[in-house]
Order: sequence, then C-alpha cells, then structure tokens
Amino acid sequence: MRPPVLLDPALRTVEEVFERADLERLYALTEVVWGRDEVMPPEEFAARKADLFAIITGRWRYGAVQELPKLRAIPEVGGRHPSSAVLDYADCFARGIRVLSCAPAFGPMVAEMALGMALAASREIVTGHVAFTQGQEAWLHAGNATTFTLFGQTVGFIGYGGLARNLQPLLAPFAVKLLAYDPWLPRTHLAAHGVTPADLETLLATSQVIFVLAIPSRENKALLDRDKLSLIQPGAVFVLISRSHVVDFEVLTELVTARRFKAAIDVFPQEPLPLDHPIRQAPGVVLSAHRAGSVARDLRNIGRMVVDDIEALLAGLPPLAMQVAQPEIVYRLE
Amino acid sequence: MRPPVLLDPALRTVEEVFERADLERLYALTEVVWGRDEVMPPEEFAARKADLFAIITGRWRYGAVQELPKLRAIPEVGGRHPSSAVLDYADCFARGIRVLSCAPAFGPMVAEMALGMALAASREIVTGHVAFTQGQEAWLHAGNATTFTLFGQTVGFIGYGGLARNLQPLLAPFAVKLLAYDPWLPRTHLAAHGVTPADLETLLATSQVIFVLAIPSRENKALLDRDKLSLIQPGAVFVLISRSHVVDFEVLTELVTARRFKAAIDVFPQEPLPLDHPIRQAPGVVLSAHRAGSVARDLRNIGRMVVDDIEALLAGLPPLAMQVAQPEIVYRLE
Amino acid sequence: MRPPVLLDPALRTVEEVFERADLERLYALTEVVWGRDEVMPPEEFAARKADLFAIITGRWRYGAVQELPKLRAIPEVGGRHPSSAVLDYADCFARGIRVLSCAPAFGPMVAEMALGMALAASREIVTGHVAFTQGQEAWLHAGNATTFTLFGQTVGFIGYGGLARNLQPLLAPFAVKLLAYDPWLPRTHLAAHGVTPADLETLLATSQVIFVLAIPSRENKALLDRDKLSLIQPGAVFVLISRSHVVDFEVLTELVTARRFKAAIDVFPQEPLPLDHPIRQAPGVVLSAHRAGSVARDLRNIGRMVVDDIEALLAGLPPLAMQVAQPEIVYRLE
Amino acid sequence: MRPPVLLDPALRTVEEVFERADLERLYALTEVVWGRDEVMPPEEFAARKADLFAIITGRWRYGAVQELPKLRAIPEVGGRHPSSAVLDYADCFARGIRVLSCAPAFGPMVAEMALGMALAASREIVTGHVAFTQGQEAWLHAGNATTFTLFGQTVGFIGYGGLARNLQPLLAPFAVKLLAYDPWLPRTHLAAHGVTPADLETLLATSQVIFVLAIPSRENKALLDRDKLSLIQPGAVFVLISRSHVVDFEVLTELVTARRFKAAIDVFPQEPLPLDHPIRQAPGVVLSAHRAGSVARDLRNIGRMVVDDIEALLAGLPPLAMQVAQPEIVYRLE
Repeated sequence: MRPPVLLDPALRTVEEVFERADLERLYALTEVVWGRDEVMPPEEFAARKADLFAIITGRWRYGAVQELPKLRAIPEVGGRHPSSAVLDYADCFARGIRVLSCAPAFGPMVAEMALGMALAASREIVTGHVAFTQGQEAWLHAGNATTFTLFGQTVGFIGYGGLARNLQPLLAPFAVKLLAYDPWLPRTHLAAHGVTPADLETLLATSQVIFVLAIPSRENKALLDRDKLSLIQPGAVFVLISRSHVVDFEVLTELVTARRFKAAIDVFPQEPLPLDHPIRQAPGVVLSAHRAGSVARDLRNIGRMVVDDIEALLAGLPPLAMQVAQPEIVYRLE
Repeated sequence: MRPPVLLDPALRTVEEVFERADLERLYALTEVVWGRDEVMPPEEFAARKADLFAIITGRWRYGAVQELPKLRAIPEVGGRHPSSAVLDYADCFARGIRVLSCAPAFGPMVAEMALGMALAASREIVTGHVAFTQGQEAWLHAGNATTFTLFGQTVGFIGYGGLARNLQPLLAPFAVKLLAYDPWLPRTHLAAHGVTPADLETLLATSQVIFVLAIPSRENKALLDRDKLSLIQPGAVFVLISRSHVVDFEVLTELVTARRFKAAIDVFPQEPLPLDHPIRQAPGVVLSAHRAGSVARDLRNIGRMVVDDIEALLAGLPPLAMQVAQPEIVYRLE
Repeated sequence: MRPPVLLDPALRTVEEVFERADLERLYALTEVVWGRDEVMPPEEFAARKADLFAIITGRWRYGAVQELPKLRAIPEVGGRHPSSAVLDYADCFARGIRVLSCAPAFGPMVAEMALGMALAASREIVTGHVAFTQGQEAWLHAGNATTFTLFGQTVGFIGYGGLARNLQPLLAPFAVKLLAYDPWLPRTHLAAHGVTPADLETLLATSQVIFVLAIPSRENKALLDRDKLSLIQPGAVFVLISRSHVVDFEVLTELVTARRFKAAIDVFPQEPLPLDHPIRQAPGVVLSAHRAGSVARDLRNIGRMVVDDIEALLAGLPPLAMQVAQPEIVYRLE
Repeated sequence: MRPPVLLDPALRTVEEVFERADLERLYALTEVVWGRDEVMPPEEFAARKADLFAIITGRWRYGAVQELPKLRAIPEVGGRHPSSAVLDYADCFARGIRVLSCAPAFGPMVAEMALGMALAASREIVTGHVAFTQGQEAWLHAGNATTFTLFGQTVGFIGYGGLARNLQPLLAPFAVKLLAYDPWLPRTHLAAHGVTPADLETLLATSQVIFVLAIPSRENKALLDRDKLSLIQPGAVFVLISRSHVVDFEVLTELVTARRFKAAIDVFPQEPLPLDHPIRQAPGVVLSAHRAGSVARDLRNIGRMVVDDIEALLAGLPPLAMQVAQPEIVYRLE
C-alpha cells in the first residue's frame, strides 16, 4: 500500500515545481491524496490526516504535528524551512519528522546570477550597454578605463554556507584568491575547504569583488554599516545577492551614488522598491528585481529533490537532496 | 654584450603594454636602442638597423627584413600578426626570424567577456537593469519569464581556436554539452579536446547559447547568412565576440529586432557604429563597444609575453608565450 | 565557564588523533576533565558525569545517556558510529544528543589509495616491479601486453556514498565515463551528481575498472557472488576497497587466480588473513593489509573535525565536519 | 588527385600505431604508395620519391630532402624528432617541410604512470604487496609507519615541458603546492601556468614528491649529482620518469639503498639493466622497465595525430596535434 501524501505547493504551483517525470514518480511511489494548487478542503484533510506520510507544502498550515501521527516528512517547496512560529520543531524532532527545505535547489542558479552580475559590474556590461543605446558608448580602451577582469583577483565571501559553496566552483577557473568571513564557522573548517579565513575588515579592505552570501540572522542585521562599507576599495565590486538584511542599505546607496565603489544588487530592504529610491539612478550600479532564484527550468529541481527524498525515506534512508532542519539553527534564523 | 632591441608600441603605448617589472627585465636582458611611444627617427634607425636583434612593434614600418641582417624576432603588440602586404613572411621564414603575435594575451579577457555577456543576455541582467531604472522592473518569477541558466545546456562554438580554448574552462563548471563547428579542424581533433564536432546547421539548431569565436578568413565572410541564422532556436542567445565579418549583420539585426532570439554583440561591421543603426534599439540585445580585449591590467600580459619570448630566444629556445606566425596560415587571414 | 568534556580515544591514542594545535583549541574551548589514552577511572567518571557536555571516544563505554543529562555530543574517533547494541540512539535523538562519526576524515586517503591501487593493477606497477626484482622484467612494449590507461575508460562505482564522492574528483582529469550502482539512491540523484545510474549487471559487464565502495549492510552481504563476478570483462581491474562483506571472497580468489580479471584488494574477510590463503599467491593481484585509511598525518584530520564540531555546537550551530547519525540508517548497518 | 604518402613505421608497426579508422582516413585523404612494416624497396622508392607529399616514419632513412622536391611533412612515429645527424633540418626549414614528432601522444600515459608510481611509493603499495605475498604484511597503522598522502603536499617538477603539463592536471585534485625548476623557462612563464618557480636546491629540499620530467640535453647530464640528491628530505619520494641522463644513477642507487628517501624509477642508464645492478634489491624502491610510454591503446593516438596533421596540412593549415620541430631546439637535444 502506497503511503498517502498531501501536495500543496501554496505560494508556488504544482507545474512550477515539478517536471512531469518527477510528478509521475511521486504518483507511482505514493498515494497523492491531494495535489492541486488550492488548499485541501478542511473536511477532506480531516478525513485523511491520520494517515498522512508526508505533507509537501510551500506554507505550513496544517496545525500541530501531534495530530498527524504517521507523518514522517514535511518537504517544503518555498525556499526556506517553515518558521518556528508556525511549526513546532521540538515536536517534529521528538517524533522523527523530517522537515526538509528545498533551499539547495536555488544554490546553482543564484550562484550563476552572482557571477553574472559581478561580471556585468566589473566589465561594465550594463553601463556600456546603456551608453550604447544612448549613442554615447566609448570604444575599445576608452570604454575600459575602470573595468577589470576576475583573473587572479582577491575575492571575498561574506558568509560561507550553501550559496558560497555553489559559487566557489564557478570562480575556480579564474584562479582567484578566496577570502571568507563567517563568524559561525571555525577557521580550520574554512581552510579545509580551500578558502582563506579573514576578518571582516581585512576582507572588505582587500577584496576586488565582495559577495554578500550570508543568510539573515538575528546577529547580522546591518552588519555592513558605514564603518564597514567605507573600507571597500575604490573601484571594487560589491555584490549583494543573499539578503539586504545584512547591509545598511541607505549607506550603501550613498556610497555607490558617490562612486566610491561599484555594486550589483538583487535584494532590497523593501520589495518592490519604492519608485523614488535613489539607488535606481546610482551610477555604475547593476540592479535586479530579486530575480536570482526564480528561473523556471531550475525551479523544477525542487520537485526532483522532493521525490528523491521521499523515495529515500520510503527505502528507509535519510534524506539526501533537501536540507534537513537542524535543531541548533532552526530557532535562530530571521 | 646585450643585443640591441627597438621598442615601438605604435598604436599602443609603452605604459599600456608593459608593467614596470617586465620593462626592467627587458632593459636588463637587452640594449633598448629605442623605447618610446613615437617612431624612431629615420636617421637613428638607419644607424642601428644592422645590429637589431628584435623589433617590438604594434605596426610594422621597418621595410624589408633583408636589410636587418641580425634580426631574430618581431614580437608584435597590437593583437595580430602584421599583414603579409607589409611584411615579407617568406623572407622571415627563410631567415629564421620569429614573427610573434601577442594574440594569446587577449584570450582570457575576451573569454571572460564572452561569458559575462552570455549571462547578461541569458539571465536578462541588462534588460532587467534597464527596466529597473525606468521603474518598470518585474520581480521574482515575473522577471524570469524568458531567462535560463547555463547548467547542463547545449552550447555551440563556431570556431575552435585559441579563444574557444580559453572559454571552454570557464564553462566547465556549468557542465554544458559543448558542440564545435570548425571546418579547419579534423573532427578527431575536436573530440580529443572534449568537444563534440558538429556541422553548422546542427549546432545552430540545437544550441541554447552560440558563441561566434572564429577568426575572419576569406572563406567565412558572412558565413552566418539568413538561412543559417534562421536555424537558431527561439529564446537562444547568440554571442558575437570575435568578428562581425562572420555574420550578415543586417540579417542579424532584423532577426534580433523581431525577437527571434537574443544576442550579445561586441564587434560590429563598422566601428564606431552609426548612431542610427537599428541594432542600438533592438529588444533583448546586449551591446558592447568592442570592449572585450582592452582591459588595462590584462593588456600588460603582452609585455610579459614579449619579454618571456625574448628571454627564451636569447637562451636558444623557441618562443613559448606568443603565437608564432605559421607559413600555412599567415597568407589566408583577412 | 567552559563545558566539561571527556576525551577517551579508546582504540586510538590522543596523539594519533590530534595535532597539537587542535588539542590546544579543545583545551581552550572546553574543560577537558579527562584526556588520556586510558579509560577514566569509574569513580572519577561518576563524579563528573552529571556535567559532561561531550564524550569524545573511540568506543562507547559510558552506559545510558539518560544518566548524562547535559550531554550534547558524542564525537567518535574510531571511524564508525557506535553500534546500536551499545548506544541507545532513540534516547540520543530524543535528548538532542549529536552522535558524530569521524568517517569523513577517511574519505580522501581511502580514495587516494583506491586510485593508487587501481593504477598499480592497470599499469601493472606491482607485477612489473616484482618481475624486475627477480631479473625477469619485460621492457617497453613487451611489459605492456595487458596494461591500460584510465583515460576515457568506463569506470563503475558499486556504492555511491561518501567514499565515492571523494574518489570522483580524483578520476575527473582522466575523463572517465562513470557508472554507479547504488540501490539506496534514486537514479535522478546519481544523475544530478554527474554519474550514470546503472544496474549491477551492466556495470560489471562494461566497466574497465570497478571500485567496490559500498558500506556493509544487511542487504549487501556477498552481493557480488559467482554469477555477478563472472560478468566482469577479461583484463578489467576490480578494486575492493570498502569492505569484503560485499563480495564472495572465495569466488573472487578463484576467478583472479584463473586470471579472469585483475584485482586490487585492501580488505579481507578475515584480518589478518591466514597465511595459507590462496589469494596471497594469485597472479596479477595487488594486496594491501587494510592500509587505505591509516595514514598518520591524515588521521589527525579527525581531531580537527572533532574540535570544529564542538566549536560549532558551542556556538549554537549544527555540526559541520563530522557525519551526524541519522535515525533511518543507524539501525541497518552491520 | 590525392597526394602520395610513404608510411614506414620502422621500429614500430602499422598496427601498433594506427587504429583502423585512422588508417582508413589516411587512405582516403592520400595515396599511400607504401604502407607496410618493412622498408620500401629502393627501386620503388626511387620511382616515387619525386612526388611524395609526406613520409611517415619511425626512422629517417630517406636521404637528403632536396631530392624530395614535393615533400611537405615528415611525421615521425617513434617518439622524438629525427637526429640532426641524419636529417638536414636547415634544409627542411628552408623548404617549408614540417618535421613533426608524435611525442605529445606519450604525455598522458607517461603522466599517469608517474602518478601511479608516485602513489605506489608514497602509499607503499608495492612494498606492502611484496610483504603480503611473503606473509609478512603489517596491518592497518603498523603498515603505515612511513606512508603519506599527496593532499596538500609540496611537489616539485624538475623540468616544466610537455610531460609536466600533462601531469599537472592529474595532481590538481590533491591540492598540492607545485614548485618547478626549469632553467630554460622564464620565471614569469612558470608563474603564469600556476606553478611556483624554484631553484633546484629549494625544490629538492622542500618537496615531498619530486618528479624528474626534464628532457635530456647537453646541459643537464647528471645534473642531479651527490650534492643535489643529498638535499632530498628523508622519506620523500623521488620519481625518475623522463630520462636517467639527468641523474647520477649510482649515487641515486646508493642513497635509496641507504633508505635516505624512496624512489620510483622507470628509466635507467642502461636498458636492459644488468641483472646484478644493486638498485634491483634496494628497499622501498618501485622499479618499472621503461614501461610508462608503451600502452597499446594509447600508442594508437599517434596514428590519429599523424592523420589529423596531414589533414590539416592538406587543408592549408598548420599542424595542430604533433610537435613541430623548432630551429632553436632541434640542435641541442641529446
């Protein structure tokens, strides 16, 4: 008998998350008692909840897990573990329920965007294009007065988590010297992964390209304040890709507007950003509307990972594709 | 006694081409009888020409090599071998004079720009930025309706020469499937380098990203005509990075304007391009004013290569950094 | 106040496991209440057990975890998680005690040995050397009648766990085609890691080199029996590196003795192996006395990992270097 | 009309050098006027020599090239350019005849053997196996008292030519620190290829593994004499893979016999080596009878390269697979 599974992609849709082949795999492995883009009607849910093996969802709205006695897995398809405000993790841990995040599906596409935006800024691909469409382009050397290549440069990672580990191989062919600042990680751990541990000040003051890759936490709110941002070298490129939470965005706007350094920004303190925000007109900036992690084909890796892990759990194995919620960390994330 | 060398960077400048350390190496290894940005006065040249060991120049203007009996090397610093219209290659080959091009210095920076422009088009970094500055950006999924990542894609190289070999490692972390069309090279040679040989039609019809990397020749003028360009898949990205010679640029403009595919273009049939050329306003295009090969720091690799090869020749070794003019090829290039 | 930690390397020694710098880190981060190669005297243990934060040990001999109310971590330094016969995992999971294995420290050195033994067999480095010392060596081509290189070969992994993932990058420069058989893992998972999923029969029948990398389980005892081993191609190399449990060793001995294929073997059904075991005299075999995972310098990565994870836990983070015991898997291992 | 080609593999055989597909390509592209393992009868050669386009041979025995007026290429299949004692290179250069060596075909297989022999010595795969067959094997740690892994080690290349460039990527996954000593090459050239230039003394005194990769020249005869070899660290591994010419072999034998360091040796001052040479019984040595470059399948890359370059020349292109004889170097090799 196939175990019953509820599929509620919530803020996403089934089609957005699943390739047909993976969906067919899910239907073959389990009994999908609900698999539509709307929420399961309460009475239907009530009728099946006692038997559910997994609830695949983009938003936890299924109450206390103690009323789901057979639940083994909560694979989430939104991009981050449910907040501890809505899901009782202690209860999940005690009951051996795997709370699984699809965050790893985003790593490659966000890392690619980080590289693309860094190059767009360092090689002035955006600025050069805009000038071109205005008939004001500078040719050859004249158009390269303030550009640089990545080859052999010092590059700094602020945060060395999953995203950093996806970006690192993309930078490898450029033979960069990698610095990383991550106060959560031992220096020996960083060194074992081929990056040089650095304090934040050194990293900011010596890197030609700086990638902000840290996940938001209670500790790192506006970590990059005026003092810190002022350390960045003239002409360097600052890539803000994980969360704007980590930076004092108004100071960043001010420094970029003053041409202190270049910036490439995919995440903002307010989204959509107000139309009159001055960063929109800052010189030498590359702006993207939180688009790094939403490429259609790649989002469907979520579905593959969900089904892979359900297949693993049914085979009596630990999950292997999604990120397992960890007791130490789940309570401290913003 | 150090051998006399003439240094005339012609269209470039000494400072543009040489880092201080390499220039010092040159002065230590040789007697630099002329090393300024202007041309050597004719009477001075006449006085020293009988002894010259090497003429480092951006433009051959030193007449017949038979009047330079001790000449062993012509390292050029412009980017391509002197035309056979101004330099008698047969005489050079007979006299064992090495005619050396600094073209390899450009490979890495042009390859990086090719990748950066491809990502700017595929991830719509340019389009997205322009929309953002106009207050019309689309957020998240809405801004990714027609984007794609490189991971696992089929990528086509038109031309598999030095530039292609510089681009290949930058694409390796994306695990692309590489096709190459190069009618000059045996299919077995391509396969031995890890690319799949393909005919031009197959390459155009199946690649998600197409890089034009071929050097111009008499045979490949407008090779990519209407029939060929029409094979490109809807939504694919066409990156024109080596020479516009290879493409019918007006047809390219027409197809990109009609949104048949995306394009990223660094080289143009006329440079500067007329202000009213319609490609300037084409949708989804990324335009760069022939800026791929002029990054200041990287241009100074030219000087390193020149001095490395003079050092090698003085040690009785073949050149090892610059591209040696080959009898088979020097007459057929445009 | 630094948390109290007990360090009992059991079958190993403190010096074997820890570099001085890591040990100093441990003493700085924690109060090491015991840190010698002998077991802690029972009365001393009884006096401190109520406060212990971690027990670092090569052998669990500390009774029920419910009597260790402050215990948060059991980092083991032997090489595998304690058996569920001696440690109550359910209790550990319920109490949030991290049971951590140093198995990842062995991956690189075992993978290197697997490559080295494969090359020793495929290039007949061992056989050629032995012949040489006997004055019977065959020179040049004559000594290569049955050798092969790895370049471009089909290579099969039986088991695609941590060891396989350490071996994969070492094989990458040889551009091998990688097949993997792992019944525990979804085919899509294997494909996402760049290996081609294969059934066991296909893998055995088509691979030029076969690596046995599977950990022993109740399901895979003597998986490679006569029928399976008979599928191996003549002249192929069979590398037994993880556990002999997986293979019918007597049949393997018989087939290698009959020169059906070559073998490189580091693990045996009985260790030490009886002196009269016929594999000792089999032709074309490479034998190693379970030496893949005991290189002195590399064993000290265990200490680094232990201290890194204690540092992480003290900082309120999940472990990041060692392998965390998983409820699904801990009960099914041999 | 297909150009006439003479194929005389001399010390090799047609079958040894050519895969069927490459041979078919040769017959399709050219008129093979002779293609057998014996030498062409003199009268037949005399009848065709005026028209020959290429002579593919393992041994130049065709007299003065001035009597071969249409000759364009001499692809050699033995492994090194013909000696300047038998071939008039000045005449070849003047006539534009490409003298091509198949040496690049050997790079990968020799590099693999160098790695395999290094691992056989460093991990004591050979010593461990021999002890095992004698019933004297030491298990686990006891068998690893003097072993080491390559990970993170300092590795020295003596000579940084084609072979070194083939070995470098095989070592890349081990994250070694690469030193290179090559007096023929500028230090800047080495640095540009990712290796640290070093003087010979520093390299010998600091490398854990030393690879002798230099081709023999008049200058480097017994370069590694007693003074130099005595600098090697106790327990290091010395891999002699290119030519024994470079080393004082009797001193090497003495030091290895005294267990000063380990050695892996594929090339000898006399081949076959006398049966009573003491290196045969030296402890900790790995001996191979000049077998690194004779793997059957890989030798057939020679044929592919020959036909690729004939195809290139017929298409009016420079050779691209084989090594072109260079005027600077062809006279100075041993």
